[in-house]
Amino acid sequence: MIFSSDNWAGAHPKIAAALSTHASGFEPAYGNGDLDQAVTRKFSEIFEREVAVFFVGTGTAANALSLVSYDKPGGLSFCHRESHAMEDECGAPEYFMGGSRLHGVDGALGRMEPARLERAIGRYVPEFVHTGRPAAVSITQATEIGTLYGLDDIATISAIAKKHSLPLHMDGARFANALVALGTTPAEMTWKRGVDIVSFGGTKNGCWCAEAVILFDLERANDFGFIRKRAAQLFSKSRFIAAQFDAYFEDGLWLETAAHANAMAARLAAAMRASRTLRLAWEPQANEVFAIMPAARMKALQEAGARFYDWPTPHGFDGGIGEGEQLCRFVTSFATTADEVDAFASLAP
Amino acid sequence: MIFSSDNWAGAHPKIAAALSTHASGFEPAYGNGDLDQAVTRKFSEIFEREVAVFFVGTGTAANALSLVSYDKPGGLSFCHRESHAMEDECGAPEYFMGGSRLHGVDGALGRMEPARLERAIGRYVPEFVHTGRPAAVSITQATEIGTLYGLDDIATISAIAKKHSLPLHMDGARFANALVALGTTPAEMTWKRGVDIVSFGGTKNGCWCAEAVILFDLERANDFGFIRKRAAQLFSKSRFIAAQFDAYFEDGLWLETAAHANAMAARLAAAMRASRTLRLAWEPQANEVFAIMPAARMKALQEAGARFYDWPTPHGFDGGIGEGEQLCRFVTSFATTADEVDAFASLAP
Amino acid sequence: MIFSSDNWAGAHPKIAAALSTHASGFEPAYGNGDLDQAVTRKFSEIFEREVAVFFVGTGTAANALSLVSYDKPGGLSFCHRESHAMEDECGAPEYFMGGSRLHGVDGALGRMEPARLERAIGRYVPEFVHTGRPAAVSITQATEIGTLYGLDDIATISAIAKKHSLPLHMDGARFANALVALGTTPAEMTWKRGVDIVSFGGTKNGCWCAEAVILFDLERANDFGFIRKRAAQLFSKSRFIAAQFDAYFEDGLWLETAAHANAMAARLAAAMRASRTLRLAWEPQANEVFAIMPAARMKALQEAGARFYDWPTPHGFDGGIGEGEQLCRFVTSFATTADEVDAFASLAP
Amino acid sequence: MIFSSDNWAGAHPKIAAALSTHASGFEPAYGNGDLDQAVTRKFSEIFEREVAVFFVGTGTAANALSLVSYDKPGGLSFCHRESHAMEDECGAPEYFMGGSRLHGVDGALGRMEPARLERAIGRYVPEFVHTGRPAAVSITQATEIGTLYGLDDIATISAIAKKHSLPLHMDGARFANALVALGTTPAEMTWKRGVDIVSFGGTKNGCWCAEAVILFDLERANDFGFIRKRAAQLFSKSRFIAAQFDAYFEDGLWLETAAHANAMAARLAAAMRASRTLRLAWEPQANEVFAIMPAARMKALQEAGARFYDWPTPHGFDGGIGEGEQLCRFVTSFATTADEVDAFASLAP
Repeated sequence: MIFSSDNWAGAHPKIAAALSTHASGFEPAYGNGDLDQAVTRKFSEIFEREVAVFFVGTGTAANALSLVSYDKPGGLSFCHRESHAMEDECGAPEYFMGGSRLHGVDGALGRMEPARLERAIGRYVPEFVHTGRPAAVSITQATEIGTLYGLDDIATISAIAKKHSLPLHMDGARFANALVALGTTPAEMTWKRGVDIVSFGGTKNGCWCAEAVILFDLERANDFGFIRKRAAQLFSKSRFIAAQFDAYFEDGLWLETAAHANAMAARLAAAMRASRTLRLAWEPQANEVFAIMPAARMKALQEAGARFYDWPTPHGFDGGIGEGEQLCRFVTSFATTADEVDAFASLAP
Repeated sequence: MIFSSDNWAGAHPKIAAALSTHASGFEPAYGNGDLDQAVTRKFSEIFEREVAVFFVGTGTAANALSLVSYDKPGGLSFCHRESHAMEDECGAPEYFMGGSRLHGVDGALGRMEPARLERAIGRYVPEFVHTGRPAAVSITQATEIGTLYGLDDIATISAIAKKHSLPLHMDGARFANALVALGTTPAEMTWKRGVDIVSFGGTKNGCWCAEAVILFDLERANDFGFIRKRAAQLFSKSRFIAAQFDAYFEDGLWLETAAHANAMAARLAAAMRASRTLRLAWEPQANEVFAIMPAARMKALQEAGARFYDWPTPHGFDGGIGEGEQLCRFVTSFATTADEVDAFASLAP
Repeated sequence: MIFSSDNWAGAHPKIAAALSTHASGFEPAYGNGDLDQAVTRKFSEIFEREVAVFFVGTGTAANALSLVSYDKPGGLSFCHRESHAMEDECGAPEYFMGGSRLHGVDGALGRMEPARLERAIGRYVPEFVHTGRPAAVSITQATEIGTLYGLDDIATISAIAKKHSLPLHMDGARFANALVALGTTPAEMTWKRGVDIVSFGGTKNGCWCAEAVILFDLERANDFGFIRKRAAQLFSKSRFIAAQFDAYFEDGLWLETAAHANAMAARLAAAMRASRTLRLAWEPQANEVFAIMPAARMKALQEAGARFYDWPTPHGFDGGIGEGEQLCRFVTSFATTADEVDAFASLAP
Repeated sequence: MIFSSDNWAGAHPKIAAALSTHASGFEPAYGNGDLDQAVTRKFSEIFEREVAVFFVGTGTAANALSLVSYDKPGGLSFCHRESHAMEDECGAPEYFMGGSRLHGVDGALGRMEPARLERAIGRYVPEFVHTGRPAAVSITQATEIGTLYGLDDIATISAIAKKHSLPLHMDGARFANALVALGTTPAEMTWKRGVDIVSFGGTKNGCWCAEAVILFDLERANDFGFIRKRAAQLFSKSRFIAAQFDAYFEDGLWLETAAHANAMAARLAAAMRASRTLRLAWEPQANEVFAIMPAARMKALQEAGARFYDWPTPHGFDGGIGEGEQLCRFVTSFATTADEVDAFASLAP
């Protein structure tokens, strides 16, 4: 009953196997091998246009370097106030940008509210150097609390960004979970809705360590090789990332693992909806489920072997958390089994 | 006949297998799993004292963050003029330090000359802010050109550093190759000779992607967790690095692979010594061999299927490279076979 | 009727004259002249203990470098959400710190609310690298909106900082205005209340360009010379700043100019209290006065020659700004005359 | 007999007086006042085309921010190995650029040797991320050792820069001294020879603190306001810099002060040429004179009241410094008198 995080799971057997398959033989280093190139082309197929692909090692790096690539002096990047980039990366985006700032925007259920984003950007007066100036907008898909931006939501955010001549970045640490939940395509969820650059995450969805930055503007990509190398994110035996992605995309494995994780979350949510001892905080849309329960219940469940985290109440959440109650997060993954979910459900009838 | 680089090899089968072995099951993320802890303890055993261990993803990161951990405003770190940190990391050390500089020191055959190091440090007058001030000394073991600092050499460099109250960093991207070549222990080659912090490389010696920063000063290590996270080098599924090191250390695999690579280099060097068509540039001490040959010969060898790089002449090399001749680098690894070496030898009689 | 800002005034005649007095003759550069040393000693007298003094050119530099001197990897500095450092320095503190962040804390009337500060710091769990960690607390005295921290308020903030082992910085861009308003001494307002480092501003109070960073921890000051030089804030003809401070302190000129500015603000506030066409937004405590008036009135006053800025409503201000009304800021200085104030009053009866 | 540095002099009386003249009255801050604008226009006249002008406070800032404005990820800026930017700014350029590096190029008498510059740039292979990539070329005019780039020299350097699509920066801390020595115009010495950006120094030539960055590419200047503010170099009472430049340019004062300083240097050099006790190291071209003398003589002169610095021997200087001899630097300024020079000469017959 491990619902702590999708990064507590190891790697999918097919991905682990791919690393053995590709372990022998010599290949050019630093991304110049045949497999690196083949996987890069695969990304272009998946996104239905030529894209520039840069493997990196962590989601933190993917996000930080995406913002670096569009940064400017005095720049501010707008993201949800409780986004991973703002809350959980030890200031890495600011560090890699050399001090440019993130500007937190509120919004219910993990999504920036468009009107607030518009106001936040709009208060910056062009040429007024004292405040700095907008440089980028960043959304997280799926969000930190397991909700989604619908395709229209993305288009709305994108329109605001474009109105202010700002690029739109998507933190896709859980890209696949969002994709299958929306039943759409990578192209529809990104560049066709105005997204300019994507942190494409594979790690949470069954890889060991496979992240990529996807740029749709190929000219912009000219600098990215230097941005990545300077940031210590160019891996010598790059094929170890390529091999993971190769297996990840093979026969749609990535969609399967994401669909499975989402299904497990739905199963867990269904059990919670039926529970008298805890309740869903909000409707999950991907592979994270949030529940409200008495603190004593939380403790009892954890003592019974269930692993999950208590979680701070999101700004603007008005779902009601009573005195003595606690909000808790449950994350499912490719490795979560229906048995585990059911075992948990039986503990929280 | 691939001698391009030790990072053109993939992973040792036992290391690849370890990733399959550890792929299943849930473990705490970010270095808090049992395997992470066990491997950390293993490092302490290997170094014969309690050490702080921080896994990172690239040698560039290990070097840059080691220097960050001892940096100060206006700091300069002294390293060989042709060291990897100065020449091949796209300015990553300076970037991560936020602008602190590297100061190149000359010395024959890849080793800083102690007297030059002493002079280079000595010209900085305490409190004279215009020039900045010394912050660290960094040596590479084995060096970029396949030579070694002997234990006494390390002690000599260390004494200079200590005289000026500077920490000593060792870039150990090829730590194991140096260790077995010297026939010594990790403790003797590092802290017993005054080394304060080590970039401990596993990637070039048979891992996919396994590097660690080792600090002997446990108090100094308190900051390092933040330094690493901020630098996007904290891996969520950290066990994928731990598993590699676990297999790496099991039954001395790491010493075997390094000894093999060194033996292949020695075999190659022996062939070159006997060759009439090319000659050794200097005596190899680890797993890199440098040869001088006519440019036409180089081309012919490459056309015959041998892969290796031409290389710039090191500063101060007085071994004589004639008109029309070219210096070339050959690197061996755990995956190099005697047959490959012999096949090459037969091409260069 | 210029109430735009205290930095719209030029320099006090005595300060301008000092620059002529000290213009001739040769003096050691970079702060090593006799006058530099004399003024430094003067600061120690004024603060009633030995202090380290570093002249810099702008308040932005004083604030940024103060925070640099206490920064650590992953650090967050806590300041009021609407402080100058957060809102009006184009990200300079973050830039000079290389990416460390400012964390905005709310509080009515420009002062951080102690309970909120405590909560903001308290949510950081030691050793939890994902969030980063507290590094400093910074208060502005007088605040951005012309209010003051009383001596007890400073002690309260300081106690919170000390409880968490954090240094306390004071942005004293309007140090003198606060000092005379409180009727206290520099020692009482700073180190006797737990302040560790001060941005001591002279520019807004009658100098051309004279700011200083004051450190009470002399050991900490050892690095500051390098921090300043690296930041391009070490002035070669340093005596031009020393001469300004020399005149500034001579016969208590700085207290006179500040008292005058405050008195003009009080006179203006009195007129506003009596006005039927506009009203005080809150009670001014130093040299800034905020008024609420109909937007049409604002426009009329500006057309009649009064210069002042409209101002965004502070977070948490509950003084009531009606539909069609506007909050406006008026700043007085050493150069503001009673006639100007009265002329304005006559326009807003 | 003060020949320590041109920044040991104070300010020219007319410049000091200008600060009194402009001290009274209110003016918009941050460079928006009438005087600021008038002086900016004056720069365009002087350079015979529309230029973008940004006042800053120190030469260090002017150089560092000039390089920031043309920097790119992994960038290297090429300058003379003994240039001020490399040797005397505590790493400020690298700090402000966030880690981008300076690459020292040798050349006799303070000037980069074109062939060496060409080779230094040429070794960087486009797209090869490991080494980083060229970003700018920077020359110092007059050089750190009092020599000049002739107009043809500038054109030669510029052609190399342009060939590699690199911008050319001129560190003009002693711009006026070079200008009058060459008997040319600002336009001829800069943009007509391919210079893209200039650090225009006034401080060493009679101002208190007046430096400016001049950009010829007005589009590039769009970012510079943010670059400057973020770097804490936007002065609130900006007119104190404008007033200095106003007086500086009035009736050609700046050319007079520079011509005087140069003449004093020539007078000193003549005395040295005639001296039997010391000798000119090389022919001075601006306001710095270097002499070689026995160390005992140096001590005696200093004890007799002459102030000057001993100086490290420049790389590649083959003028012969004997055992027991010392190279010394003498700097003249607007404030140096013929009497002082003659007094010195009488001590060194």
